Amino acid sequence: MNQLEQSFSVPFTYTVSFTEHLFASDNTLFRDWLTQSARRSGTQLTRKLLFVIDSGVLAAHPTLPANIQTYFADVPGLRVVDEPMVVPGGELAKNSPELVDQLIDAVDRYGIDRHSYIAAIGGGAVLDLVGYAAAIAHRGVRHIRIPTTVLSQNDSGVGVKNGVNWGGKKNFVGTFAPPVAVFNDAAFLGTLDDRDWRSGISEAIKVALIKDRPFFEWLDTNADALANRDAEAMSYLVYRCAQLHMQHIAGGDPFEMGSARPLDFGHWAAHKLEYLTDFSVRHGEAVAIGIALDTVYSQLAGRITATDADRVLSVLQRLGFDLFHPALAENGGENLRRGLTEFQEHLGGELTITLLDALGQGVEVHEMDTALIQQAIEKLENTLMHNAH
Amino acid sequence: MNQLEQSFSVPFTYTVSFTEHLFASDNTLFRDWLTQSARRSGTQLTRKLLFVIDSGVLAAHPTLPANIQTYFADVPGLRVVDEPMVVPGGELAKNSPELVDQLIDAVDRYGIDRHSYIAAIGGGAVLDLVGYAAAIAHRGVRHIRIPTTVLSQNDSGVGVKNGVNWGGKKNFVGTFAPPVAVFNDAAFLGTLDDRDWRSGISEAIKVALIKDRPFFEWLDTNADALANRDAEAMSYLVYRCAQLHMQHIAGGDPFEMGSARPLDFGHWAAHKLEYLTDFSVRHGEAVAIGIALDTVYSQLAGRITATDADRVLSVLQRLGFDLFHPALAENGGENLRRGLTEFQEHLGGELTITLLDALGQGVEVHEMDTALIQQAIEKLENTLMHNAH
Ligand SMILES: NC(=O)c1ccc[n+]([C@@H]2O[C@H](COP(=O)([O-])OP(=O)(O)OC[C@H]3O[C@@H](n4cnc5c(N)ncnc54)[C@H](O)[C@@H]3O)[C@@H](O)[C@H]2O)c1
Ligand SMILES: NC(=O)c1ccc[n+]([C@@H]2O[C@H](COP(=O)([O-])OP(=O)(O)OC[C@H]3O[C@@H](n4cnc5c(N)ncnc54)[C@H](O)[C@@H]3O)[C@@H](O)[C@H]2O)c1
Ligand SMILES: [Zn+2]
Ligand SMILES: [Zn+2]
Repeated sequence: MNQLEQSFSVPFTYTVSFTEHLFASDNTLFRDWLTQSARRSGTQLTRKLLFVIDSGVLAAHPTLPANIQTYFADVPGLRVVDEPMVVPGGELAKNSPELVDQLIDAVDRYGIDRHSYIAAIGGGAVLDLVGYAAAIAHRGVRHIRIPTTVLSQNDSGVGVKNGVNWGGKKNFVGTFAPPVAVFNDAAFLGTLDDRDWRSGISEAIKVALIKDRPFFEWLDTNADALANRDAEAMSYLVYRCAQLHMQHIAGGDPFEMGSARPLDFGHWAAHKLEYLTDFSVRHGEAVAIGIALDTVYSQLAGRITATDADRVLSVLQRLGFDLFHPALAENGGENLRRGLTEFQEHLGGELTITLLDALGQGVEVHEMDTALIQQAIEKLENTLMHNAH
Repeated sequence: MNQLEQSFSVPFTYTVSFTEHLFASDNTLFRDWLTQSARRSGTQLTRKLLFVIDSGVLAAHPTLPANIQTYFADVPGLRVVDEPMVVPGGELAKNSPELVDQLIDAVDRYGIDRHSYIAAIGGGAVLDLVGYAAAIAHRGVRHIRIPTTVLSQNDSGVGVKNGVNWGGKKNFVGTFAPPVAVFNDAAFLGTLDDRDWRSGISEAIKVALIKDRPFFEWLDTNADALANRDAEAMSYLVYRCAQLHMQHIAGGDPFEMGSARPLDFGHWAAHKLEYLTDFSVRHGEAVAIGIALDTVYSQLAGRITATDADRVLSVLQRLGFDLFHPALAENGGENLRRGLTEFQEHLGGELTITLLDALGQGVEVHEMDTALIQQAIEKLENTLMHNAH
């Protein structure tokens, strides 16, 4: 009688759908999903649905609120709450604690219960904010994600994490809380500016390099089409990248209780660079540079050939990514050394960095050689000078 | 290529240990647990451990901080952070948003990562607060619970929920986040005032009535000993009640994704009563009244015999619980009708109330008869008048 062992597993399931024009009246996908979801829980009660929209998305798609009203006008057992809430798009969404309060207040005011839905339409930042508020209100109301950027459609929006910034620290508070459904609408991507279109592509390169050589070959072949905003190429990229991320999450440690984080290939330097530039470098842009760095490092460490490394750099460049940022070299290497330490502290436990053993094959290491990092940086710095010519 | 299904399960395990004098230097339980936990994660790194103490506990156990320092003085690979943080005990802990901020700030300041620990020592309110802060900081740092009240040792502290109040709404924000370990130290219970000692006993009666007739028989037999603060009887009560709660959580729907909540027997009226009395009636006291109400209702509905119902009331009375509170009868029954609606809204979905089909056997119903509720109230009101004579 001095010890009880508790042990259980909590099952999570959700669907990620790929469509175009989600709220076109003849697109029944979302309505059908709601009907089935209500049927599964076996009640006849009216469910509420609150929409939260990214201000950048609203600016580019001003008829969205009206389309939503029309789309849901007579779905039995469902009530779309009021006007949608609009929140600022981009990192501001995650830097404003009062927005979390406003969202929780809306849950209270509209009587959103654990069987009602909050649907967020926006980029990764807005999804992270709304997902967080939905996760803590009533200990979790059902959260639907409608990602509108490349990054959120192929990576952040199909995963299980949310969060906001706190006291200037990125993602310092948040939870692991899977959505109940994700709707990836390709039509949203058309209104992205070029930087946001490109930025999310680096996550595809990342996941291809550590997991799937054929996908990397495909990216190589289609780099020019992607750079020229070919919608069809982008659709495949988003689908395949989302799939690889989802498989990784389901196959591993979804709530990241261990120390390894292989999907963070290229991310240790990227995180540092985002901070050093006060987030003027976008996440995906920073990741492209981080990938370049860890690829060259992998070559210098004798893990991959120079041909392979150059091929990675060339794909990144054809997509329009910079391979270097001066902030990385400042401070005599100290910036990057700190970046390593901070990355370790953030994950907790032992330092764990993913490198490449081949194109399509990641490998975890627990040490990085400062001299090799320095050499890699210098090599990348040179690419910048060449470009400038 | 238009849909991906995601599906995975997240495993959780933790140990609930029963001990006395957790921080006595010859009690190796906690130290051993930490050593094993470090070994399991296979790293040699120093882990940090931050203690947060309930002010009421500190007042009753002023040497606790010194005992903790001594106890952990030379545990290799572990560093107890600074002085423990002290937070107000009782509901104030959950009504003060700035405490959540202070806790997150401490996580930042002391560099507590996802492999470090925050240990909370206190009643259910302090555990709910600290568990919540630990769950959202870094998307979850490891949380150890050291419950110090009957209620928290046999119910709230061994479960998976946390939360704080928001805008006057009880538990309006929170998460489902299991602890990594729970240490139930019986010695803490000795310093509880009588109301807190008694209050937690109602959760044992609740779980016995819906799940375990022999445990109810035991409670009946030991009611006088428990009322007289017999420590040995209380130890068994806490152990068995914790076990039944844990089994229920593991066997069912740990994160409460459905609508049923059988452990909330007697709780619909209790929640309303807590609000009506501005929480001057303690949770367990309100639950005792709620149990009395739903027991008498079960009898009036023909589900259990009058003998069985009277036996339940008698056990509650011998323990010193009131069976009625005037606030329930005010407003011509409207208070309780609202209580039902609010209970339904809180859970979401269909109204689901647990009644008794026998002592030791709960049953879920989806309707309550207002006239029978009124009759039950009147019967309980009479017990009060008899007592007053
Ligand atoms: N939760 C996770 O697992 C995870 C993973 C990676 C990144 N993230 C987070 O994602 C965020 C970055 O997300 P992002 O790259 O999607 O950018 P973003 O959310 O910052 O959006 C960038 C800009 O694009 C605008 N926008 C969004 N959709 C648009 C559209 N269809 N047309 C026109 N404008 C549009 C926004 O208003 C914003 O101004 C970061 O906060 C990052 O931390 C989260
Ligand atoms: N998370 C859950 O699943 C869950 C379940 C049930 C209740 N709860 C919550 O638990 C809270 C009630 O908890 P509680 O009944 O433990 O009371 P409490 O935490 O409110 O504590 C009552 C009082 O006892 C003091 N105290 C605590 N331990 C003491 C000790 N050993 N000696 C002397 N004084 C001590 C506290 O300082 C406080 O003043 C409520 O907020 C309720 O919502 C949570
Ligand atoms: Zn990324
Ligand atoms: Zn209770």
